[in-house]
Amino acid sequence: MEKLTFDTVILGGGPAGLSAAIYASRGAVSTAVIDVNMFGGQPSNYLELENYPGFQIVGGFDLMEKFEEHADKFGVHKFPMQEIQKVDLKSKTIVTNEYEFKAESIIIATGAQPMKLGVPGEKEFVGRGVSYCAVCDGAFYKNKVVAVVGGGNAAVEEAVYLTKFADKVYIIHRRDELRADKIVQERAFKNEKIEFIWNSVVKEIKGEELVNTVVLENVKTKEISNLAVNGVFPYIGMTPNVEFFTGQLEQDSRGFIVTAENMSTSVEGVFAVGDVRTTPLRQVITAASDGAVGAVYAVKYIEANKEAVSA
Amino acid sequence: MEKLTFDTVILGGGPAGLSAAIYASRGAVSTAVIDVNMFGGQPSNYLELENYPGFQIVGGFDLMEKFEEHADKFGVHKFPMQEIQKVDLKSKTIVTNEYEFKAESIIIATGAQPMKLGVPGEKEFVGRGVSYCAVCDGAFYKNKVVAVVGGGNAAVEEAVYLTKFADKVYIIHRRDELRADKIVQERAFKNEKIEFIWNSVVKEIKGEELVNTVVLENVKTKEISNLAVNGVFPYIGMTPNVEFFTGQLEQDSRGFIVTAENMSTSVEGVFAVGDVRTTPLRQVITAASDGAVGAVYAVKYIEANKEAVSA
Repeated sequence: MEKLTFDTVILGGGPAGLSAAIYASRGAVSTAVIDVNMFGGQPSNYLELENYPGFQIVGGFDLMEKFEEHADKFGVHKFPMQEIQKVDLKSKTIVTNEYEFKAESIIIATGAQPMKLGVPGEKEFVGRGVSYCAVCDGAFYKNKVVAVVGGGNAAVEEAVYLTKFADKVYIIHRRDELRADKIVQERAFKNEKIEFIWNSVVKEIKGEELVNTVVLENVKTKEISNLAVNGVFPYIGMTPNVEFFTGQLEQDSRGFIVTAENMSTSVEGVFAVGDVRTTPLRQVITAASDGAVGAVYAVKYIEANKEAVSA
Repeated sequence: MEKLTFDTVILGGGPAGLSAAIYASRGAVSTAVIDVNMFGGQPSNYLELENYPGFQIVGGFDLMEKFEEHADKFGVHKFPMQEIQKVDLKSKTIVTNEYEFKAESIIIATGAQPMKLGVPGEKEFVGRGVSYCAVCDGAFYKNKVVAVVGGGNAAVEEAVYLTKFADKVYIIHRRDELRADKIVQERAFKNEKIEFIWNSVVKEIKGEELVNTVVLENVKTKEISNLAVNGVFPYIGMTPNVEFFTGQLEQDSRGFIVTAENMSTSVEGVFAVGDVRTTPLRQVITAASDGAVGAVYAVKYIEANKEAVSA
């Protein structure tokens, strides 16, 4: 197995990781980016984004291609399609199916993923009626009918948010009461655009070019019904991609990595940026910012470390 | 005087303010942006930026024009060239020479400015050899000779940073010892590319198309000398643009506004974003991210407030 050494290794090639790559390589440290897939991360699956400042409207794939080319310009070493086998944060070692990487500093940018409904049609219609981000995509549903799936704070808040745009918002929840905070619940209950569908789960998402129907099952009566909608927003939770790190550094109760303001983690020389960390907002712009901050402080750490070694 | 009411008023039309405008107006709240100049803020004066992810190289003015057009698309109300007379954060009132603005929420995005040397040539050569940001512009000085002015941590750290690119870095300091931390000093002292010019101040910056000379005065001997350089980086401190807010909310010892992670300040309904706040990094990408976060939480605040009023 080939052994490779870099000043910094970035795990994840989405917006946070590629921005970190731009800043780290521009800071003149040798920089590698590793991903389990091709680069681009979550936004690569979004049809269009209209909230990355500077681009009024841009395809998610196109924007991520621009990020990647931007990183290329500064000589970043790219390792897509790596099967990660082991990450040891303390010794800064990453083993994949092809290489053993050794670094001075690791920047974790592995992202998070919305928990999936796991029903037919869900994957097929992502970006064409299935969305996991109301802030990103709400404005596309002006005067349309949408369904939010879930009963927690995120689901109910986003349903209220969607009423700014949509004529009608269904909240589909598997129980007969919400988990969301009372104040959030009240806001939804008195919003005339919101209608609740209790004791129900989504069995399938259907459509032609775009989504037009969700198939529901009442969990009590087992009755099956069709609901006409233009969009479905599953809000049943987010989960960070941390399987290779869990237990090695401080995480919150849901597994997200806890960082200081400069993106440092509880392990020296290890930084976490973007959706994988505990953060107040998960957007391309916030991930890219995190990447910049984490990389600048990783470069400072690497410099100070070389100092200490040579002293 | 005309009275105007908006859900949110954003003070400052640089990257943080314009990004906040995009996110706030996209969140379907009525949004005004006020600036004392035309929009664009600090980057408008930068010849080129090569570290805003997605744009490999872009004129500062061009990028800010894109931000402004992006905000326009969502129907932001723009008030450039306003002479601010009074801001009362608690009552959310802003008085200018033309209008009295009343808001539910205020987002402060007034930025900060590098303290200027105040010498002939400084202003004229900004972006053509005079830079206040080594991280932004260092890479343009590959194999060149540059001078950093100052003796604090920022000056010395940035001088070390610039040795990654430049062949020679002078540190010009008015005293005969540095104010920077010992460990930072040591790093500079043993860097062979760095040469110190003690007891000296810059009297003038000269050049043709680009900077080629700084005129120095030795403060002890009063001797005048010319030093050939391609770039000058004054690092004598940053100062936030807070004259209308000071005393109304929590600030750090240098005047920067203290915020929580969601950009809220010590005054309810008032958020601060970008360079004006205490932040680990001041870049276009971090300012734009702050704007997005602040606006999303301002929208949540406005919604909750309307709720409370109508309940």
